[in-house]
Amino acid sequence: MSHKPLSGILVIDLTRVLAGPFCTMVLKNLGAEIIKVEAPKTGDDSRQFGPFINSDPEKSAYFTSVNCGKKSISIDLKKEKGKVILADLIKKADVLIENFRPGTLERLGFDDQTISNLNPTIIHTTATGFGYSGPESKKAAYDSIIQGLSGLMSITGTEKRETVRVGSSISDILTGMYAAIGIVSALFRRDKTGHAARIDVAMLDSTVSVLENAIARYQISQEIPGPLGSRHPSITPFESFTTMDANIIIAAGNDKLFASVCDVIGKPELASDRRFKNNAHRTENYQALRQEIESVLVDQTASHWLSALNEKKVPCAKINTMKDLFEYEQLTARNMLVPVDGEDGFQIAGNPIKFMGEEDDLSAGTPPKLGEHTESVLRDVLNYPDEDIVTLIKNGRKSPF
Amino acid sequence: MSHKPLSGILVIDLTRVLAGPFCTMVLKNLGAEIIKVEAPKTGDDSRQFGPFINSDPEKSAYFTSVNCGKKSISIDLKKEKGKVILADLIKKADVLIENFRPGTLERLGFDDQTISNLNPTIIHTTATGFGYSGPESKKAAYDSIIQGLSGLMSITGTEKRETVRVGSSISDILTGMYAAIGIVSALFRRDKTGHAARIDVAMLDSTVSVLENAIARYQISQEIPGPLGSRHPSITPFESFTTMDANIIIAAGNDKLFASVCDVIGKPELASDRRFKNNAHRTENYQALRQEIESVLVDQTASHWLSALNEKKVPCAKINTMKDLFEYEQLTARNMLVPVDGEDGFQIAGNPIKFMGEEDDLSAGTPPKLGEHTESVLRDVLNYPDEDIVTLIKNGRKSPF
Repeated sequence: MSHKPLSGILVIDLTRVLAGPFCTMVLKNLGAEIIKVEAPKTGDDSRQFGPFINSDPEKSAYFTSVNCGKKSISIDLKKEKGKVILADLIKKADVLIENFRPGTLERLGFDDQTISNLNPTIIHTTATGFGYSGPESKKAAYDSIIQGLSGLMSITGTEKRETVRVGSSISDILTGMYAAIGIVSALFRRDKTGHAARIDVAMLDSTVSVLENAIARYQISQEIPGPLGSRHPSITPFESFTTMDANIIIAAGNDKLFASVCDVIGKPELASDRRFKNNAHRTENYQALRQEIESVLVDQTASHWLSALNEKKVPCAKINTMKDLFEYEQLTARNMLVPVDGEDGFQIAGNPIKFMGEEDDLSAGTPPKLGEHTESVLRDVLNYPDEDIVTLIKNGRKSPF
Repeated sequence: MSHKPLSGILVIDLTRVLAGPFCTMVLKNLGAEIIKVEAPKTGDDSRQFGPFINSDPEKSAYFTSVNCGKKSISIDLKKEKGKVILADLIKKADVLIENFRPGTLERLGFDDQTISNLNPTIIHTTATGFGYSGPESKKAAYDSIIQGLSGLMSITGTEKRETVRVGSSISDILTGMYAAIGIVSALFRRDKTGHAARIDVAMLDSTVSVLENAIARYQISQEIPGPLGSRHPSITPFESFTTMDANIIIAAGNDKLFASVCDVIGKPELASDRRFKNNAHRTENYQALRQEIESVLVDQTASHWLSALNEKKVPCAKINTMKDLFEYEQLTARNMLVPVDGEDGFQIAGNPIKFMGEEDDLSAGTPPKLGEHTESVLRDVLNYPDEDIVTLIKNGRKSPF
């Protein structure tokens, strides 16, 4: 009879697009109640991002991917009544998260001190491009810009030094994840000590924190790490290869596995070739080795090679496409693609944090329509009297509060 | 006088290399005490990974990057005394984390039920390649293999469809971060309800969860998303360009900014060119546009173009290398590269979760030598009597316990 870890936690979410909404999706998957506070008429910018489910302009696939199961209240923070409602929400909340540029919420009348006065134990979190300190603090950021500034792009790309961005907005996502870690740890402390927290998470910092050993390698060798394609920096062959119809990854970490690769491709003599006799030699001569292997692989399909390699127990894998994911049994077994309720089979990624012996969500819920929960939040969360709600909604029709 | 959020939390860490150690680094940065349980003689495999600080084979830069400030106890889990010590540690712990393949810890005598009997409120977390369920559950995984299987590699690469891996082991790191979120949320619940938790986080699931809108786009269009180089899928120009000496990113999200780009490169006529008159046209003709822009950019340095673009307020950025990071003021101001104590300036990434108004660590601490804290853990954590410790250590010399 366990309940979800964050059951009963109320999160007021002023964020838009990706980093903040990703954070509150993680919190929602853990059981928190998320109230999105959205501007009238437009709401979260990502509501306008295509493509749209069934070509319905109110059903952005992007918005749906990160906002299922949240509530939406639509208020105008530039209007007096909107400010009163936000203040009342802050009083009730456990967590406030926003991704305005530093200074914006302050100009709307909600500086840190005001927020703290409204709710002395609130966990107030900001997710921004550069954070609340430093010379670039006030600059706007896009994921691509941060992938470049953080150094991540400089080590991602082809061996010919064509740098590329990670194919998803990883800087935004990492930021959302770190914000979630900060928030939950601050809630843990609050319940013990009564402390509030003011958490400041930046896309630049978050991305720098995942560069792994590149930072270390540079300091020791003074050589600037560049992109390596799909290759492992010190194990060979350990990379992707082209076959007749698709790329596959072969990860042969020792001499025995390498000999098996040579057998599979019908070139057993390579295993005793001086250039490839051990991992150090193979890494030194990786281009020659790559050519020897690939020249054979292109003659057959990916599935032919994978089954031959698997038979010899050589670690290998298909480079799955989005299409392949929908046919991948391991993902189905793990409940990692879950349907959006009422959207006829449209699926989004499931929750990767599995609590064994507890129930996993079998659907993602539905994304809120803009302002869908304005009335219910005013009534059930803020306990506004019915007559006030009627007046507010009526006035809101003419001039959204 | 606030204390760190996870002060007082004791984590027993049986993990090696990256995903698990990354998780416990995040927990350590939040104030938890981490005790690494390592095998005698070799310890965490990554202790052997080069390069080494000052060429000292006991100072792996890789190991140092993710293990500073943790304690190390060296025991042999195949020996009876080692098992008793682990059982005693589990009794005292708040969290147990391990990344053995499913079944391994069980064979050492610690199945889930045994662990739960030893400590009925423990947060027991496993970080594995494929998770504890599904047909591939028992398979080993490497980061490269998971980047391929998850679909992330299929959308990361050049426009010529050469797929590459993300330049850091992002699947491992995401797994460590999700494990941290799961652990802290379970601790929060435990303090409220007394519930234990058995958390199962997989590299495959974790990586699938960050594919962002690629999953959605495929379902709607039935077109398989491929790699786009550094390009934004629907905004142009919004990608990296080659200059005389380095690549830069230009992110011009609207017509006005595009006109500014045209001015900066001395081709104002492009702004009224029919092929480029609005974003949709520019995206359609992105290759022609790219050529027009790049043919000019190669004549001058990156810094020349960045200052010209900045002057016109066009979002742009250098693609920083590891070298550049050490000269990047914003990172210094954010305390995002912190020294390892006693290592003469060797730095690792700092903690990206900043608690405003609270102290940030100005150094990372030191990585533990293998078994460095065996004695102090036996004495101060397990409260073994002195005479037992003397005997254990003496016997341990001959045959590590």
